Amino acid sequence: MNDRPAEPRHLEFMREALALARANAAAGGRPFGAVLVRDGEVIARAANRILETGDPTAHAELLTIREAALALGLTRLDGCTIYASGHPCPMCLAAMHLCGVEAAYYAYSNEDGDAFGLSTAAVYAQMALPPAQQRLPLRRLLPDGEAGLYADWARRG
Amino acid sequence: MNDRPAEPRHLEFMREALALARANAAAGGRPFGAVLVRDGEVIARAANRILETGDPTAHAELLTIREAALALGLTRLDGCTIYASGHPCPMCLAAMHLCGVEAAYYAYSNEDGDAFGLSTAAVYAQMALPPAQQRLPLRRLLPDGEAGLYADWARRG
Repeated sequence: MNDRPAEPRHLEFMREALALARANAAAGGRPFGAVLVRDGEVIARAANRILETGDPTAHAELLTIREAALALGLTRLDGCTIYASGHPCPMCLAAMHLCGVEAAYYAYSNEDGDAFGLSTAAVYAQMALPPAQQRLPLRRLLPDGEAGLYADWARRG
Repeated sequence: MNDRPAEPRHLEFMREALALARANAAAGGRPFGAVLVRDGEVIARAANRILETGDPTAHAELLTIREAALALGLTRLDGCTIYASGHPCPMCLAAMHLCGVEAAYYAYSNEDGDAFGLSTAAVYAQMALPPAQQRLPLRRLLPDGEAGLYADWARRG
């Protein structure tokens, strides 16, 4: 069930993301692909490269952001849309927010992935908890006398 | 104000993260540094490299995760702790959750960073909203006839 009527090009870009996911799975990788589009043009394409690189952050969406930023010479990606074969994890969704990606579409849901260990719903649930209740405690530790790091940086500006 | 009494080694690792942040700022980069520690040993050190690389995902914490994974030959970082000069953004916090980082400490808060454009509180606020209410809409788009991507992958196992 889609939230909005699909435009033909949306489907074209999503099919490309899905083809990347299938090709990656066929090559022994994880079944995730993504394309990043601006003004109707694909700027970056990627599949999950965790197995290939040993980098646990090498998710397809994050790789398209990195590649698009380098291709465009911009660290902001306003006006860009990401088509991902699977529901983006919170790392990738936050990365999209951080650099101004305008919208994102996914084909397979976390529910679809759950039986195969491919859902990140549990990570979303963790991050929705207050910091002190998350499995990973995030605590402040400010050494005595430490001050001014950000103000010094801003003055250099 | 710290949440717990600081152990001496915690402070040592945090001071190293802060030194990385200061050195990066002095070199024209952004004022963020991080170290990743396992069993009392620093496995990876990084400063923010956005300006140097043009990669908007090159946050210090994400880089320590990538470097530690490569150094250890593991995509899971269970038992590891990250010391970050500034409050981790949600991309980096989610990455820590994803790969099993055990705990994280930060020195400067989002409140400290707010006046300098160095807070990611707004991104946390976005991600706390229901998907349909976020500035970045995340929508499902499943092409007709698309099915079985994850089951096919699992069968290959």
